[in-house]
Amino acid sequence: MPEQNETKLNIGLFGFGVVGESLYRVLQTNKSLNAQVRKVCIKHADKKRNAPAELFTTDPQDLLRDDNINVIVELIDDADAAYLIVSDALSNKKSVVSANKKMIAEHQDELLELQRTYHTPFLYESACCASIPVIRNLEEYYDNDLLQGISGIVNGSTNYILTRIAEDGLTFEAALKLAQQEGFAESNPALDVEGIDAVNKLTILLTHAYGTVALPKEIVHTGIQNLHAHDATYAKEKGYEIKLVAQAKKLEDGSVAAFVLPQFLKKDNQLYNVKNEYNGVIIESGLADKQFFYGKGAGGFPTASAVLSDLSALRYDYKYEYKKLRYQEPAALAQDFYLRVYVSFDGLFHVPHELFEVIEEWSSNNKRCSVIGIIRFSKLKDESWWKKKNTSLILMPDAFADFVPELKESSASEMFMV
Amino acid sequence: MPEQNETKLNIGLFGFGVVGESLYRVLQTNKSLNAQVRKVCIKHADKKRNAPAELFTTDPQDLLRDDNINVIVELIDDADAAYLIVSDALSNKKSVVSANKKMIAEHQDELLELQRTYHTPFLYESACCASIPVIRNLEEYYDNDLLQGISGIVNGSTNYILTRIAEDGLTFEAALKLAQQEGFAESNPALDVEGIDAVNKLTILLTHAYGTVALPKEIVHTGIQNLHAHDATYAKEKGYEIKLVAQAKKLEDGSVAAFVLPQFLKKDNQLYNVKNEYNGVIIESGLADKQFFYGKGAGGFPTASAVLSDLSALRYDYKYEYKKLRYQEPAALAQDFYLRVYVSFDGLFHVPHELFEVIEEWSSNNKRCSVIGIIRFSKLKDESWWKKKNTSLILMPDAFADFVPELKESSASEMFMV
Repeated sequence: MPEQNETKLNIGLFGFGVVGESLYRVLQTNKSLNAQVRKVCIKHADKKRNAPAELFTTDPQDLLRDDNINVIVELIDDADAAYLIVSDALSNKKSVVSANKKMIAEHQDELLELQRTYHTPFLYESACCASIPVIRNLEEYYDNDLLQGISGIVNGSTNYILTRIAEDGLTFEAALKLAQQEGFAESNPALDVEGIDAVNKLTILLTHAYGTVALPKEIVHTGIQNLHAHDATYAKEKGYEIKLVAQAKKLEDGSVAAFVLPQFLKKDNQLYNVKNEYNGVIIESGLADKQFFYGKGAGGFPTASAVLSDLSALRYDYKYEYKKLRYQEPAALAQDFYLRVYVSFDGLFHVPHELFEVIEEWSSNNKRCSVIGIIRFSKLKDESWWKKKNTSLILMPDAFADFVPELKESSASEMFMV
Repeated sequence: MPEQNETKLNIGLFGFGVVGESLYRVLQTNKSLNAQVRKVCIKHADKKRNAPAELFTTDPQDLLRDDNINVIVELIDDADAAYLIVSDALSNKKSVVSANKKMIAEHQDELLELQRTYHTPFLYESACCASIPVIRNLEEYYDNDLLQGISGIVNGSTNYILTRIAEDGLTFEAALKLAQQEGFAESNPALDVEGIDAVNKLTILLTHAYGTVALPKEIVHTGIQNLHAHDATYAKEKGYEIKLVAQAKKLEDGSVAAFVLPQFLKKDNQLYNVKNEYNGVIIESGLADKQFFYGKGAGGFPTASAVLSDLSALRYDYKYEYKKLRYQEPAALAQDFYLRVYVSFDGLFHVPHELFEVIEEWSSNNKRCSVIGIIRFSKLKDESWWKKKNTSLILMPDAFADFVPELKESSASEMFMV
């Protein structure tokens, strides 16, 4: 078989949870990877581990200052500590594999600069949809292609909750509790259900898809915490599924619209069929047309499988090229466009009507009122009424509205006079 | 950004059809690929081309003997001529990108040997499901993972025809005609509709998934040419879709069951929703669990996008590793297992009943008879009654039967006494 100029990987591993331990086990038996875990840094020395004691240390320097270790695999929860580890390793020309989406999303600029300065590979496939190879595919398959849009269900916890609401008629609270019992949601679920985890992943995707390096706080988002039983009923009546969708779309002016919002999806959307804890990503491009990737987005084994594929790539010194950053003017985040949304709220006069450009439908049953209309994105960006408790905003299936502002006066105010 | 040791790609291109021309255009404007088409070999010199005349030649040697050309891209139809070009190029240490599934499937052993001998990259992502990066993902993501099974809709023509039959109630003949009019089927559609094209792709997948190098003629298959209106009605009643599925599954004894057959699929199978000319592939593995890839499997642009991704990989001298061949005992093709099938045929006594191990259901309306039962795979392999005109065999959704041969006597003969 073809020979490779393979680098032998001597791994320093941070973290020995489910992912870390699976990785350790697979590498012990795997003949082809030419990789070995040399040292593991853990937080709690006294915890019983199913591996030789001499493998473990609590001192990060035992890994970072060991010249025999040429790869750091970072699998810890603490994003701040992870950033220190990763930046130290890259500065010392150790290759790094990380699964820490929060850390990566919050430090993209610095991490890009470190890669630029030290020419050292930093791979993080597992940080985005775990087992779905979306980053590598964006790097390898779409780098020469005009990317029209990317949309995905990138958070398994919220998708599990939404599936339970839709299929079993549970309330949000009951579904969240069940998700926690089943291990699909954290005991502190805010990162997931408020959409922050999805935002972190979207910022990583934006960099590889469009060269747009954005901070999580720049991304307009909400989660599923305010969804109301009324919304679930509406979805059922219309044959929609409600999903939390992270999406980015290239607009005509070359900027990129990006946000994480719940959306009603029709049957013909591939994301409609993504159920339970699964993730799915649709990529639309000029040459390849529409592609869809589906798989487990979290969990020990799916994450370990992505880490393994990164290690496999390190053997031949693979680096992300960030071509959209390197060869093109990175696309700016779009600030001004129109979205078609559904908003439901308690009572009749809660939503500031003047925020809608056009109201296309509204209904009320004396308890809950819902409005479908066109809204200017900048108003979502600058205001927070739509995120308040008891208000839920959901994108319509055809979310991007072809709206011509001149129409505003006549339609919006007129139609809402009730 | 990280530097790469990039090889400048000087391309000799064989074929200037839709794919070839798209490729030429993209490379002309693309800044990042560091690749240029130097010479194009065509068959018909007198055809008007939308490119400078000095680019073209009809003599393959002008490309193959040009030392400045380091990459051959082979995009011609003729599989025999393609093999000569590819083997000549590899022997002269020119990297090769090919889209010719038939040529690759029929010459896998020789092509592997050439790569082994000359250590020269030979990439062919576009040969399998065009825009879906299935080969690279099998190489990069599943190489360290236990692959339980792979199943896919890998032929767009037949899938388009099946969609028209299911959605518009067309007969096979009418649907085929429509597919030809719409450009989704060749004027000679035998390769597609009889399942040969899918077999070619499956043999390529088998090599990358299991290290099983098989010739197309070793793969049990049929296409959709014998599907009967009765079968479509049965599918509709049961809520099934009929799809032509190429599949491989690791059996308990370590061998791999592989075949291309029509199958009834239930809604919960991801392939159920693959419609029209799209392709889809499900990969099931120990670590990553179940993954699904979906996209356009044919056509000029999707094919060109896959060729581009291969060129992109050549810049850093990427080669397939064929790890399942290199580090493991390649899995043998399984010869003995049991399948649950539906067979329909004209009249009552057409099917040799003794071929079934168990008959689970049968029905007849005096014109068409259908039987559901368990059949031994070796009998499909060794006999051809089930491929005859007016007989259609379709796998049941749960195709792999847990059958214990001892049960045969009592059930099969007894139940079929009608």
